[in-house]
Amino acid sequence: MSDSPLPCVDDLLAAAARIAPHASVTPVLQSHVLDGLAGAALAFKAEHLQRGGAFKFRGACNAVWSLDPDQAARGVVTHSSGNHGAALALAARTRGIACNVVVPEGAVAAKLANIVRHGATIWRCAPSIQAREAMCAQVQAQTGAALVHPYADPRVIAGQGTAALELLHSHGPLDVLVVPVGGGGLAAGTRLALQALAPQARLVLAEPEGAADTARSLAAGERRIDFTPDTVCDGLRTTLGAPNFTLLLGKAEVVTVPDAATVAAMRLLWQVLKQVVEPSSAIALAAILSDPARFAGQRVGVVLSGGNVDLDALPWARA
Amino acid sequence: MSDSPLPCVDDLLAAAARIAPHASVTPVLQSHVLDGLAGAALAFKAEHLQRGGAFKFRGACNAVWSLDPDQAARGVVTHSSGNHGAALALAARTRGIACNVVVPEGAVAAKLANIVRHGATIWRCAPSIQAREAMCAQVQAQTGAALVHPYADPRVIAGQGTAALELLHSHGPLDVLVVPVGGGGLAAGTRLALQALAPQARLVLAEPEGAADTARSLAAGERRIDFTPDTVCDGLRTTLGAPNFTLLLGKAEVVTVPDAATVAAMRLLWQVLKQVVEPSSAIALAAILSDPARFAGQRVGVVLSGGNVDLDALPWARA
Repeated sequence: MSDSPLPCVDDLLAAAARIAPHASVTPVLQSHVLDGLAGAALAFKAEHLQRGGAFKFRGACNAVWSLDPDQAARGVVTHSSGNHGAALALAARTRGIACNVVVPEGAVAAKLANIVRHGATIWRCAPSIQAREAMCAQVQAQTGAALVHPYADPRVIAGQGTAALELLHSHGPLDVLVVPVGGGGLAAGTRLALQALAPQARLVLAEPEGAADTARSLAAGERRIDFTPDTVCDGLRTTLGAPNFTLLLGKAEVVTVPDAATVAAMRLLWQVLKQVVEPSSAIALAAILSDPARFAGQRVGVVLSGGNVDLDALPWARA
Repeated sequence: MSDSPLPCVDDLLAAAARIAPHASVTPVLQSHVLDGLAGAALAFKAEHLQRGGAFKFRGACNAVWSLDPDQAARGVVTHSSGNHGAALALAARTRGIACNVVVPEGAVAAKLANIVRHGATIWRCAPSIQAREAMCAQVQAQTGAALVHPYADPRVIAGQGTAALELLHSHGPLDVLVVPVGGGGLAAGTRLALQALAPQARLVLAEPEGAADTARSLAAGERRIDFTPDTVCDGLRTTLGAPNFTLLLGKAEVVTVPDAATVAAMRLLWQVLKQVVEPSSAIALAAILSDPARFAGQRVGVVLSGGNVDLDALPWARA
């Protein structure tokens, strides 16, 4: 989406109503042990328990159910080798429409299988962003399908924001909310949710040191997205989207986190909270534990964004 | 406890009130995917999210808060190398009283560390039941501490039953409840809960093939507990207690489960439900999946009993 309009609070509230019949209301989890380690009161919004195993279903579902009937009849298309592809397939199925997912060669077989399992048509292409966009354009031309970008889409951003909206509704006041940032769909949506329900609360974005384009972009006041990602957080290797940047500029702090801290936090979430979360989720707790002064004594909401992990390749396993 | 009186429904209800200020009300989790695999509507009571990571805190807490002040002042003692020791330590701490745990040589270091972390005094002994009981008697004589047996104790049984009570209260009607069985504390307590709230519902006990003393005992009509356990379910290697047997006789079905099915179900619970549960918990789902006709089309409650796992020694890891 090149010149997407920015979503506003009304779009967020409309998204919440639109996805309510389809999305799960995920629980909020707490732990005395983790509170003790952090020196803060943590409330974990369990989006790894969302349908499809990640918050991504919210945005995809909002986009799918925003289409008018004529558009919907022609289906949807996206390019994604990860959770968004599976989420869009699942969302399309709730409306009974076709879903096309452009997947680059070399994508993880398990994630590919998830996309197929939810009934989408797979289109293979070379593993470059140019090839992905070209194939997407070709599928659009051929089928008339509507493009649903993984994060730089106002409907997707509004949908992702409903996780924080639910957390603020069900849990009560928070001083700060911590979410991971990759393309910025969850981050920008969460910003809208805070604007709606907790304008005084701070937004902290947890970003891998090896993919810190959001930190650089927000510091520079312009998008700085030319880099090669190097991080265990496979969901956060994308670059910050344009509308996402605009919504976040001047409205968020960024904590950059080394992978080792993320893996340690992931292990802690498995061991103590007993939750199977992926590195791209655990980075939020890692950000808190690596910069405790920023959160000391505060009420901190944390979105656990996803739990799609390869159990045969855990990051703490000995090589 | 040699001649313990049997707990009744009133004891169960009293236990629920007694532990309410201390125990967590754990969530109930559901999954369309697992429902599809089972051909039944499953409701998982998440006791691995209980304080201490297992339902054991309920029984220990009820026992500790049942003591009169004089008894309480002299503390409590138990023998356990597993979750009950840590649970009793944690429960004793909620009342500010001393806790002694007799631990056989060879116990898992991580579990020992848990017991110490919760403030209990450790007493080491040889790894035999005779040595454990002798050491327990010695601690009782020396300190005046009250013995809290891990499962053959009416206060412990009543406490464990509160998990099913909560599940029935919050989730609504169930046709059948499935729980793992080792010493029978959870099993007998769950029987009381069904008696109180769902007298028509069936109770199914999931037991490892390599420790099937409950299956043999209930079939024979008398305790048959002379065997050497051989199972990956380290929480279910104990033998059925006497009051537990009496409460369960004629009131429960047993499904015996091979370890391979338990490990497969454990992996499924991690992958799909995103929950870190131990083999002794996963056996309940394994029982359902290995005997689907017994549960087809029914509303099935499942107690996920605990989640204390060594993340460096997962049972599906390649040796």
